[in-house]
Amino acid sequence: MTIILFSGEMDKAVAAFTLATTAASSGMDVCIFFTFWGLNVLKKDVFSIGGKKNILQRMFNLMSTKTLPTTKLNMFGLGPLMMRMLMKQTGAASLEDLMKLARQLGVRYIACTTSCGVLGLSKEDLSTDVDEFAGAATYLGEAREAKINLFI
Amino acid sequence: MTIILFSGEMDKAVAAFTLATTAASSGMDVCIFFTFWGLNVLKKDVFSIGGKKNILQRMFNLMSTKTLPTTKLNMFGLGPLMMRMLMKQTGAASLEDLMKLARQLGVRYIACTTSCGVLGLSKEDLSTDVDEFAGAATYLGEAREAKINLFI
Amino acid sequence: MTIILFSGEMDKAVAAFTLATTAASSGMDVCIFFTFWGLNVLKKDVFSIGGKKNILQRMFNLMSTKTLPTTKLNMFGLGPLMMRMLMKQTGAASLEDLMKLARQLGVRYIACTTSCGVLGLSKEDLSTDVDEFAGAATYLGEAREAKINLFI
Repeated sequence: MTIILFSGEMDKAVAAFTLATTAASSGMDVCIFFTFWGLNVLKKDVFSIGGKKNILQRMFNLMSTKTLPTTKLNMFGLGPLMMRMLMKQTGAASLEDLMKLARQLGVRYIACTTSCGVLGLSKEDLSTDVDEFAGAATYLGEAREAKINLFI
Repeated sequence: MTIILFSGEMDKAVAAFTLATTAASSGMDVCIFFTFWGLNVLKKDVFSIGGKKNILQRMFNLMSTKTLPTTKLNMFGLGPLMMRMLMKQTGAASLEDLMKLARQLGVRYIACTTSCGVLGLSKEDLSTDVDEFAGAATYLGEAREAKINLFI
Repeated sequence: MTIILFSGEMDKAVAAFTLATTAASSGMDVCIFFTFWGLNVLKKDVFSIGGKKNILQRMFNLMSTKTLPTTKLNMFGLGPLMMRMLMKQTGAASLEDLMKLARQLGVRYIACTTSCGVLGLSKEDLSTDVDEFAGAATYLGEAREAKINLFI
């Protein structure tokens, strides 16, 4: 299975990692291609992101895992907080738990080089969990061999 | 064909059910997996949703089919109303028509148990059209055998 | 590969055309099915769109390629402008470049007749690059034969 994670919302990221971990735990080979806002999920602490970025790149980078919004009812950040509380109350795995599990189960992470270029992100800005920095051609090679391909 | 209906917007739901009914009417086996906001499409009257829900779950549940927003130009609910008027004027099938047709054509509905758990939704809160309450593993089993898998 | 382009945001359109052109340049047969807001990408100058449209249709049509918003940080149109500047600065291909390349590489464009009907769009309103006006059945025929199907 391949997943393109384009979106930077917490609820979509939870959906992507729930599918990825469930697939991997049943023995499937799973690969997530992070592009555009999906790269936010892989970012280290937003304040530690440095390097030679211009002001536009800095503005586009003012988002990190902790601050992922929800697609609906975002309410200036209250929505994601409420969703986290709900998930905790009901015993659902958090995004961080799912991401840790994904790596334990061998889910591969590819970060889109084109998006990294536009956003001025270097390897140092992203999680060390990234297996490969590559472009759309690499994704397409994976997707051609996969049974399930999703764009989230 | 399988469709994950993650989104709760009317326009995306119309797209999903247009594809599902067209596929089913040409003899394809079609299954829709409703998760997160997509469960809104299956909710009974929003005011009848009761049971033991906490205040967070109540807030997240304050949306039902009639009040599905549009992804663009929502304008505090005016957008979906205008879209409904446009669809009626131009003779396009409404979401309710498409959903009725889907069931007549044998499209199967699976409601995501994980999402139901987080949102505090029980079987009584959702349409009786739901064939099965199941998790991501059931979806993946369907998707592996399908020719077309979409995440909407 | 088939892509349903449902969304009307610039960042999603860039993602769709990056995938389409990369696939086509590696010899794959690629087809994009434009529906709902995705038709905005194909619209001619928004002010030249005429014909017999009612006021609702006119309102829904007040968007064209140049004014595609971004999914995040739209900030009343500042977001797309900043993204265009960033893409130019970093040497990334613009949406217009990608669309031109897509046609040179033989990517086929299908415009959804149902959506055109609802939005009151005629052939004259859309780019001459459209190869075919067709419905969901045509898309499904293409998707059944494809290795990769994405809904963007």
